[in-house]
Amino acid sequence: MTGVNFTPFFEPKSVAIIGASRSPGKPGYLVISNLKANGYEGRIYPVNPHAQEIMGYRAYASVADIPEAPDVAVILVPAAATVEAVRDCVRKGVKAAVIESGGFTEVDDNGAALERELVQMAGKGGMRIIGPNTSGLISTPGRFITTFYPLGKVRRGNVAYLAQTGNFATHTMRWILSAENFGVSRVVGLGNKCDIDDADVVEFFGEDPDTGVICMYIEGFKDGKRFIEAAKKVSRKKPMIALMGGMTARGSKAVFSHTASLGASNPALIEGIFKQAGVVSVHRYTDLIDSAKALAFQPLPAGGRVGVVVPSGGMGVLAADACVRLGLTVADLAQATLKRIQDVSEPWIRIGNPVDIWSAIQTHSLEEGYRVAMEALLDDPGVDALVTILVLNSDNPKPDLEFIPKFRDRNPGKPVLIGISGDKESFDETKKTLEGQSVPVYLPVEGACEALAIMRRCSLSVHPGERRKTDAVPIR
Amino acid sequence: MTGVNFTPFFEPKSVAIIGASRSPGKPGYLVISNLKANGYEGRIYPVNPHAQEIMGYRAYASVADIPEAPDVAVILVPAAATVEAVRDCVRKGVKAAVIESGGFTEVDDNGAALERELVQMAGKGGMRIIGPNTSGLISTPGRFITTFYPLGKVRRGNVAYLAQTGNFATHTMRWILSAENFGVSRVVGLGNKCDIDDADVVEFFGEDPDTGVICMYIEGFKDGKRFIEAAKKVSRKKPMIALMGGMTARGSKAVFSHTASLGASNPALIEGIFKQAGVVSVHRYTDLIDSAKALAFQPLPAGGRVGVVVPSGGMGVLAADACVRLGLTVADLAQATLKRIQDVSEPWIRIGNPVDIWSAIQTHSLEEGYRVAMEALLDDPGVDALVTILVLNSDNPKPDLEFIPKFRDRNPGKPVLIGISGDKESFDETKKTLEGQSVPVYLPVEGACEALAIMRRCSLSVHPGERRKTDAVPIR
Repeated sequence: MTGVNFTPFFEPKSVAIIGASRSPGKPGYLVISNLKANGYEGRIYPVNPHAQEIMGYRAYASVADIPEAPDVAVILVPAAATVEAVRDCVRKGVKAAVIESGGFTEVDDNGAALERELVQMAGKGGMRIIGPNTSGLISTPGRFITTFYPLGKVRRGNVAYLAQTGNFATHTMRWILSAENFGVSRVVGLGNKCDIDDADVVEFFGEDPDTGVICMYIEGFKDGKRFIEAAKKVSRKKPMIALMGGMTARGSKAVFSHTASLGASNPALIEGIFKQAGVVSVHRYTDLIDSAKALAFQPLPAGGRVGVVVPSGGMGVLAADACVRLGLTVADLAQATLKRIQDVSEPWIRIGNPVDIWSAIQTHSLEEGYRVAMEALLDDPGVDALVTILVLNSDNPKPDLEFIPKFRDRNPGKPVLIGISGDKESFDETKKTLEGQSVPVYLPVEGACEALAIMRRCSLSVHPGERRKTDAVPIR
Repeated sequence: MTGVNFTPFFEPKSVAIIGASRSPGKPGYLVISNLKANGYEGRIYPVNPHAQEIMGYRAYASVADIPEAPDVAVILVPAAATVEAVRDCVRKGVKAAVIESGGFTEVDDNGAALERELVQMAGKGGMRIIGPNTSGLISTPGRFITTFYPLGKVRRGNVAYLAQTGNFATHTMRWILSAENFGVSRVVGLGNKCDIDDADVVEFFGEDPDTGVICMYIEGFKDGKRFIEAAKKVSRKKPMIALMGGMTARGSKAVFSHTASLGASNPALIEGIFKQAGVVSVHRYTDLIDSAKALAFQPLPAGGRVGVVVPSGGMGVLAADACVRLGLTVADLAQATLKRIQDVSEPWIRIGNPVDIWSAIQTHSLEEGYRVAMEALLDDPGVDALVTILVLNSDNPKPDLEFIPKFRDRNPGKPVLIGISGDKESFDETKKTLEGQSVPVYLPVEGACEALAIMRRCSLSVHPGERRKTDAVPIR
């Protein structure tokens, strides 16, 4: 099952929408409106026996009537009608299909039989399938999208999502687009994985120049050994993080009715697979967003020694606790580093790590206090990464934080993650500004430490020579 | 040290601000502007030898000149000047002082000596001290506040914060006021705890009719045994959750330079103290906000059996995993419950718990699908609590979710927690609407489960007969 040609999936020159619709809100309408919103430049062939034209595109009664063999077919018709659709596609010479319809193995034995029939038919015709039972895929470099959830233009970036659920190509992507500021390269919801599976996509992501970070949600492996082989090669080059669904007996039971996978009947086995594959296992859905952001924006750290700057002693205590609990180290600072910060603080303040910047802010200014401390920490050879917490509120003049994004050039190879407390307005605004310049922002106290801990674990897999390459793609 | 009279601290009829200032932005100015913003109705006496009048209040050169003994003194002068200030207060007959100045035991031996001197002086005069090295306190029922951080009007509610750090009375409160929708009764930052300590405040909170939920951040116990005795009585009546700072060696080191506490040199001992005291130990700073909200808004569950409604199979898998991982149980539903939901779903859908509501939404409407499923689950005697995840986006007509807050009357004693995915605009708006009606809202998938798991742990301490009383105070 190796060596899938993903070009028709991710960069198709033409697409058939089988089950296209003129009714706004229907899946067959939304796929086309998403394609338009994303500026898809290929040829769009809506297939609907009851329409002459859909959204300005000539509609066809059947795939057979389309004047070419489209690169890819998106199949949205009910399960019972998919057999005919797939047969038509194979006859036409279509080489790639995204079957989004549900009602297969995840439902009952009849559905399972139907799914097997599709696979057999496609196999004979050399057509590869993503799905069924999924919202399909997004490819920003190809300006291509098969999702039936209203997304509008998807922000381009270097993060790829590979999920067994449609959530990432739908409402979670909507959340990322509206609440976060990083972009994606490719998003694939594999659904029941009747043909193309995780290992296939991982291989592709490994070679994909547009993908720098790989985030996965998995509900089961068809072939764990093949996944390990594929991921092992890729995780040396690009950070890979994964959330496994069905790690508990009850979750595993839910997995079957979701995507007909067997779930993680043996959690230790799954953790073993991830470990061998160099994939960092995470445990919260939000980790797949929060740490994706850090990995998208910042370089991987060379080690786990963290410099911390905080505006209050209490936050220092908790940030230190969080670092240690998460497997990071609170860096021991060089005397010269301590002196640089002591020089801008009141003499009776005892500077340590975490650095309590309160005194320096009072004596100088917020900008000066933070700049001096952050520079000093980043210059210290004993510091691999920086977590900084700021308190901002909209009553005060907006501080000029432009020095923070510049650390990327000043101290390359040392990630900087920011936490912000204060009022929501300042948080939202500063998050947007800093993340627009590739500095990830979190709520205090633990958020930034949690994301950094995942980065650190990724850096243990990614080969040092590859580290810089993972973040080459700008957000568009 | 028991039996502190907290009335002068929380409901003072008059207050002296020693170190009052005419300069906007200075602590001595901000305390007064906060008092004004909160509608403090008592008498305000600014003390400043260089001012005639501050913000419309007559200023006094010294406490001695004030025409009465103020109920409480807020001391903001530098450490070296606090001795004179405390001496003046004692002479005047002041019985309560909030010393906010830093520069004491947390700094060096001289500071420690100074702190001891203050305690001795106050002790002889029968004056009690909160602090030093803190931002002091907030009391919404007393419309009283000693904080020097610009907060404006603080929302009244039933959550009390007891912290060893000033963070909760400052920027974290600003976050709660601007990003969350629950209110507080009392907030106390104890700082160095030279006199009044956790046990004293816990005793008061236990009897305080305005306080229904007690959240703590602690960096060390002066007297663990006394804390256990006090908390044991209170945790039978009101949920108590605590985050301990300094649970790692590095965090513990940071504790000393923060509030001169010895930190949790022995984490197992601390966990033992919390366990004996019936206090639920939490590990993230955000838990002190996220679970406070659930405890503020919803009744404690009678058990840990959770009904889950989700809009996608993947979310069901992860919610089930989260419940089990967090010590909750995914409820086994009665046949009658399953049938009620099956009746609104397509026949080929297999209804289980988590309930995948997708089919019912498609067949009926979002409102109808969710309402039927949530009602069925709440009516099931095998379900103690409900977690429901909604997907909303601003392209669709805004759903009428008014049926959700009504479950509070329909099924009292069963908490309902909501997760929302989709776009940020819908999230922010629906969060505000639902939380305005005491339904807590989180990001999916784990957020609501994490808050519920903490509620469940609280319910193991709180006596069943007391459960309803914990949430008696409306938000204002």
